[in-house]
Amino acid sequence: MQPTEIDHVAIAVLDLDAAIRYYRDTVGATLIQRELIESDGVEEALLAVADSYIQLLTPTTTDSPVARFLDRHGEGLHHLGFRVESCADAVKHYQDQGVTMVDLTPRPGSRGTSVAFVSPKSSFGTLIELVEEPHTAHLSHDEVDQDLRN
Amino acid sequence: MQPTEIDHVAIAVLDLDAAIRYYRDTVGATLIQRELIESDGVEEALLAVADSYIQLLTPTTTDSPVARFLDRHGEGLHHLGFRVESCADAVKHYQDQGVTMVDLTPRPGSRGTSVAFVSPKSSFGTLIELVEEPHTAHLSHDEVDQDLRN
Repeated sequence: MQPTEIDHVAIAVLDLDAAIRYYRDTVGATLIQRELIESDGVEEALLAVADSYIQLLTPTTTDSPVARFLDRHGEGLHHLGFRVESCADAVKHYQDQGVTMVDLTPRPGSRGTSVAFVSPKSSFGTLIELVEEPHTAHLSHDEVDQDLRN
Repeated sequence: MQPTEIDHVAIAVLDLDAAIRYYRDTVGATLIQRELIESDGVEEALLAVADSYIQLLTPTTTDSPVARFLDRHGEGLHHLGFRVESCADAVKHYQDQGVTMVDLTPRPGSRGTSVAFVSPKSSFGTLIELVEEPHTAHLSHDEVDQDLRN
């Protein structure tokens, strides 16, 4: 049950526009999309680095988990996403290993993914997200760029 | 000045052996090496996920930066490493953008790398490390496995 990639590193920020500018213009990551995820009370921006993403998160409600994280810790690293072939199989594997899951079954994530969170209590303080990519024809970032230019 | 990869995600832990077991046996990452870095007061374990690493860090002295992090925050995500072609060029680029650097010139990191840290004050709360890989003939993880078996 190997992850195929570090899917994303999620970072909680107060000012999404300013953080996007920094990760795009200074760090040099490629902005892929912005998305409002009302169910989680966040707006996110995805920036690609090779086959992984930097996921910038900012709260849209005062009581969302990311808002509470910012209140407690300030801005910074929030969670770590591993890309897996099957989120359902990964959840079963973690449970078989006695790991405490936040999500006992996969649920919809951003950009059409299927995701489940692992409790940081089982993961040495790190909130881990298991991410299964959408099963659609995959375009590379270059192909997306080309597609947008046409 | 694009990073070529998320080089590593560093995680501060109290019990390195237990954390290695979790990231190897449950998460499914491949243990590559352990290394004592006396100058930083840490022992680290590198576990590969595709072309990136999970870097588990535990302090070897009570006054090392990782020891102070654990005192303040407990276990969890510590910093984020971006792989770059040239650490010296990256440092100059960040400085040209007005970013506050922890290291004004590259210094030796683990596994023969050349590294420089960017201040979290400029990076929306995230400690960022710029990592230039050693310029030696590169073996893939499979080749390393094969090499160890011979």
